[in-house]
Amino acid sequence: MIPSIADSRPLEERLARRTARMGANAIREILKVASQPGMVSLAGGLPAPESFPLEIIRTLADDVLAEQGAAALQYNATEGYGPLREALVPFLAARGVETGIDGITVFSGSQGVLDTMAKVLISTGDVIAIESPSYLGAISAFNAYEPNYVSVATDEDGVIPEDLARLLDEHPVKLLYLVPTFQNPTGRTLSLARRKAVAELLRAHDVLLLEDDPYSSLRYEGEALPPIHAFAPEHVVYTSTFSKVLAPGLRLGFSVAPTDLARWLVIAKQGVDLHTNTYGQAIAAAYLAEGHLAAHLPHILDLYRPRRDALLGAMDTYAPPGWRWSRPAGGMFLWAEGPAELDVLGLYERCVAGGIAFVPGQFFFANGGGETTMRLNFTSAEAPVLERAVSEIMRTAAAMSDGVSAAVPVPA
Amino acid sequence: MIPSIADSRPLEERLARRTARMGANAIREILKVASQPGMVSLAGGLPAPESFPLEIIRTLADDVLAEQGAAALQYNATEGYGPLREALVPFLAARGVETGIDGITVFSGSQGVLDTMAKVLISTGDVIAIESPSYLGAISAFNAYEPNYVSVATDEDGVIPEDLARLLDEHPVKLLYLVPTFQNPTGRTLSLARRKAVAELLRAHDVLLLEDDPYSSLRYEGEALPPIHAFAPEHVVYTSTFSKVLAPGLRLGFSVAPTDLARWLVIAKQGVDLHTNTYGQAIAAAYLAEGHLAAHLPHILDLYRPRRDALLGAMDTYAPPGWRWSRPAGGMFLWAEGPAELDVLGLYERCVAGGIAFVPGQFFFANGGGETTMRLNFTSAEAPVLERAVSEIMRTAAAMSDGVSAAVPVPA
Repeated sequence: MIPSIADSRPLEERLARRTARMGANAIREILKVASQPGMVSLAGGLPAPESFPLEIIRTLADDVLAEQGAAALQYNATEGYGPLREALVPFLAARGVETGIDGITVFSGSQGVLDTMAKVLISTGDVIAIESPSYLGAISAFNAYEPNYVSVATDEDGVIPEDLARLLDEHPVKLLYLVPTFQNPTGRTLSLARRKAVAELLRAHDVLLLEDDPYSSLRYEGEALPPIHAFAPEHVVYTSTFSKVLAPGLRLGFSVAPTDLARWLVIAKQGVDLHTNTYGQAIAAAYLAEGHLAAHLPHILDLYRPRRDALLGAMDTYAPPGWRWSRPAGGMFLWAEGPAELDVLGLYERCVAGGIAFVPGQFFFANGGGETTMRLNFTSAEAPVLERAVSEIMRTAAAMSDGVSAAVPVPA
Repeated sequence: MIPSIADSRPLEERLARRTARMGANAIREILKVASQPGMVSLAGGLPAPESFPLEIIRTLADDVLAEQGAAALQYNATEGYGPLREALVPFLAARGVETGIDGITVFSGSQGVLDTMAKVLISTGDVIAIESPSYLGAISAFNAYEPNYVSVATDEDGVIPEDLARLLDEHPVKLLYLVPTFQNPTGRTLSLARRKAVAELLRAHDVLLLEDDPYSSLRYEGEALPPIHAFAPEHVVYTSTFSKVLAPGLRLGFSVAPTDLARWLVIAKQGVDLHTNTYGQAIAAAYLAEGHLAAHLPHILDLYRPRRDALLGAMDTYAPPGWRWSRPAGGMFLWAEGPAELDVLGLYERCVAGGIAFVPGQFFFANGGGETTMRLNFTSAEAPVLERAVSEIMRTAAAMSDGVSAAVPVPA
């Protein structure tokens, strides 16, 4: 009933050269497996649905149509819905991102910022420096523009400035991409001293940074750190999202950029989708401007903090000797590294067969590495489920290192 | 307060090569002028806000959250929201587009289809064949992928198959882009015989067509024609939108593609925005599945038909000898061509100074031409306003050809 494309020649011959870099990624397949019914998934990166301010959104969705009528449903400016851009100025200032409305562009998710930044900046073969490991959605966006990657080494405090300095000396880096706070996949946060050091390097080498900050609002302990943008606003495009503090299904992200670059982001975005959906932007504008975000955020933190604590506690209790893991002060992920002989892909297969999913860490490395690592999400499941899942993953890992094949029962 | 990008070197040096093809277009500037307060604009391409089913949307927006809760606000499949894709199958079948759910991908406006199709198919220098004149939003999307263009000649019945055949013989065309029904900017519709002829040419030359069909639901008279997709589904990607029959601010478009190409569209879209906003898709799904679209569409037609009639009547009454214009059976635009000596840019400037805006037609030609043409929109203003505007445009045109500079009063 649905035809294939005419088979007179191979599909590859019809496609653009860039598609050779754009194959389906392994994580997509893992997330499909993880979303099967009955699976206990620590694999995804979803916010908990119970974190959404459902009744607030319901009220605002109706208010917006009652008060603004057709204007909330009409075509709108590519730059973004005016009241949302206005509401973002003080919201961003409270995070240490100083900008006026002209620096702000609203996108269809921060994924839209990643795609558009690469579109505007990257010609084939241009060099992008990324953390290792790094957020795969960024690599997926960038790959369409056929860059080359160089990887900055990281430790528990994020990227290592000395290694970044070396890379910037050795390679003509066009763009640096970092998730400095509660990074995906590691949950690590770049220290204040390193933020300043990175900003200095951006200036010294005249390199642009794309600072991706989806998680900084999800801080469960400790003091907020200023973004790198605060130390070098003329060399940084900052991006964040409403996906973790309102709802991801609205697909709302935004960028803060130097004004001349912001103008190019708008030109490029116009070709991609004309503008971001007006209705969602109007709802988000009211959510910000009427103080709902500030009032609701503590509920999200109170939901996630005990889950993080439960995951950390379970790691402390069940991880066999030889394991190390991050202690994220916020965000959605914990990063664990097993002993050198650990077969994480084998562990993954056994766990999935038993109804528990996680993401093997090697898939987050663009240039190899991480063979004994894994990413564990702690926002999608309740504390007792997380505890049982970790207990089973670690029991299986221990059994594998003992050379014993263990069946993994599905947690109830 | 908002910095410019560091000025140590010119911005151009920092940008990707493709940006040389992506400058702000003239129409964008014209639309800015046209949207100034007090301007009577026949320039835009906006649906009338009073065409939106505001109360239906308000009800559905609440129903969706009441019934589906957080699921309507969560991340969703890149392919599109399941119930919307399901509802699109019979909707498309009624238009003559046969597909199953696997052929359908939902995008952030049909603009997203245009961008993603080029991303997946076009390498630098690949040849795209377009109508002349053509929809500028498509050229704006395609330009980012640095194609070369060849133009197919058109007449009152749309593209001329003999000219298309010649082009396909002479050039290695990778993609043909057409708006066969109530075209933007001309309002013209490709005849049935030519649709079949184009389909034959696609097969004979093994070329893909992107068939852009935003307007076919807006038919004010006559019988619907089948899409070209119906005659060569294995060589056509069909795209349409909810922007004209529901609301453009929701940013919802969709494609129907051969399954193997649809898979690539999904991979590419994942890098662009992960997926289209879930909430809007859920509203549109209910709008389709519950029969609201079918019930509301006649109201839209009853709103626009008299406006089209008024514009055509005013042209009949006021256009001086030597003018010709299209008689669109649907859509949003009328295309007018003045006598050979007409200075349309001069006419535009005089009319704008007098508070009336339209789009000079030459901006719709990728390779030159159309110097005496203009596009007039008839959906955004009421019939008496359209009549007065045409009367003034034509009085000014006549005065110019008489060598007299006439001031144009602003219609009340």
